[in-house]
Amino acid sequence: MFASMTASVTRVGLVQRRSQGDGARNLASAIDGIAEAAAKGCHVVGLQELFLTDYFCQSEDPAIFDLAEPIPGPTSAALAEAAAKHRVVVVGSLFEKRAEGVFHNSAPVFGADGSLLGVYRKMHIPDDPLYYEKFYFTPGDNGFLSHSTAAGNVAALICWDQWFPEAARMSVLRGAEILFYPTAIGWHHSEKDEHGAAQRDAWETVQRGHAIANGVFVAATNRVGVESGLEFWGGSFVCDPFGRVLARASADAEEVLVVDCDRQLIAETRRNWPFLRDRRIDAYQGLTKRLLD
Amino acid sequence: MFASMTASVTRVGLVQRRSQGDGARNLASAIDGIAEAAAKGCHVVGLQELFLTDYFCQSEDPAIFDLAEPIPGPTSAALAEAAAKHRVVVVGSLFEKRAEGVFHNSAPVFGADGSLLGVYRKMHIPDDPLYYEKFYFTPGDNGFLSHSTAAGNVAALICWDQWFPEAARMSVLRGAEILFYPTAIGWHHSEKDEHGAAQRDAWETVQRGHAIANGVFVAATNRVGVESGLEFWGGSFVCDPFGRVLARASADAEEVLVVDCDRQLIAETRRNWPFLRDRRIDAYQGLTKRLLD
Repeated sequence: MFASMTASVTRVGLVQRRSQGDGARNLASAIDGIAEAAAKGCHVVGLQELFLTDYFCQSEDPAIFDLAEPIPGPTSAALAEAAAKHRVVVVGSLFEKRAEGVFHNSAPVFGADGSLLGVYRKMHIPDDPLYYEKFYFTPGDNGFLSHSTAAGNVAALICWDQWFPEAARMSVLRGAEILFYPTAIGWHHSEKDEHGAAQRDAWETVQRGHAIANGVFVAATNRVGVESGLEFWGGSFVCDPFGRVLARASADAEEVLVVDCDRQLIAETRRNWPFLRDRRIDAYQGLTKRLLD
Repeated sequence: MFASMTASVTRVGLVQRRSQGDGARNLASAIDGIAEAAAKGCHVVGLQELFLTDYFCQSEDPAIFDLAEPIPGPTSAALAEAAAKHRVVVVGSLFEKRAEGVFHNSAPVFGADGSLLGVYRKMHIPDDPLYYEKFYFTPGDNGFLSHSTAAGNVAALICWDQWFPEAARMSVLRGAEILFYPTAIGWHHSEKDEHGAAQRDAWETVQRGHAIANGVFVAATNRVGVESGLEFWGGSFVCDPFGRVLARASADAEEVLVVDCDRQLIAETRRNWPFLRDRRIDAYQGLTKRLLD
């Protein structure tokens, strides 16, 4: 009559990789990571942002659009096949070609049977020195999603989205229990000494804040390695609805992080801290404004 | 032609107190705190939530409404006088009687000349065992505010508000540079051992997240001491736009925390991490919904 406790436990795998500068090798490495996570009992695996390539947004080069591919397409087919083969949900990441002149930074989500459950298209696009994403990526126009899977309700959000409480909140209002953040974030060589620790701590803290404010798990996957002017800081992590970091990957090594997330803790946390009950939905209209004068 | 750097520094004082169970003594203690902060050069002083009384929401008792008073009224007059005397901005807190049957948990903000700049009325009202606030406080109906003062633009939000990213965001969209959170939060005796550390860490973390997501300073003032079933955990703190805790008060002692906040850091942080530029105001309508189906 009652679900066993273990039924509420989702084992999450995060595949933290270094780009080898070659699509075929990076794809093989990601798929190895999926296999390893599945072998360790994971129900869902999160890949890092744009895992197929170097983080190419360090410069603006029209030739790079050749790297994009449709969904479905060859890489999404390979991910679907890996999901089905290993019976595991996969939160992927791709440079998506939707049409000539309309490219997205996208996260396809695959069910454990290999079916494509949906495609999240990055909504918040950064543009900073060495992160020239506004050149490449059309902002997403299908909003914030949640996908019902055998591993629970999962949402994909992507990198820069992680700084926006609105993105986390809307994914959760759609039902998400675990927020996945495929990420590519690193230090500028010139800034690491002075600001590096604070930047990385802020990155983790703001995401822990989303977990707390929403009573959900957060799982962020970042890459490692140095590519041109950026040193990616790894530190892939999973935190619980209290914002407690359950596990954190290293700053510079490839690894598959495996973390048990007991989704029963979501109910427990929200019953004690019922923030969703008390949101002032009558008073939030101003959130759709740039500034309030 | 150029403002000196020091002109951008706001010295913040937070008055962390133990209730003495008596309005006159608690008021004198708060005003002593204002005087001490001003003597130490503070430009703005934040008081703790409902500093005039014990935290009376541990039970539901209609007689307690007698403790409420209008604004302006005797306590707000005393705070205004202290602000003017010491030439300091004061973020206060009061159980406000607006009409018979309409009482608020309010934060009057006074300019350094003693003028009442505005009254924030708590928007998010908790109701949990020993925090029966929905019995006492009508939810605020004048939204989220920011007040222009000699110490910069300050907003007051109150306790339970601190768990809601929407509240911080809207205050910031109105111009706030420093978010004050008068607070009364503590441990249930029965929970402290098991959950105490995690609760307090989550409380601080979610507010640090607001500072990061918005590029502002956060200043939270909590009380100390044991009152019936609750042990208030103090830990008043100020953090910067990177979410770095600049100073934190103790868990059990009265003190006046004094912290310099260089508001120039707001511009610097936001130019490097321009989150406000990239908010998807076209896609946030769902935030005004309870859930998204």
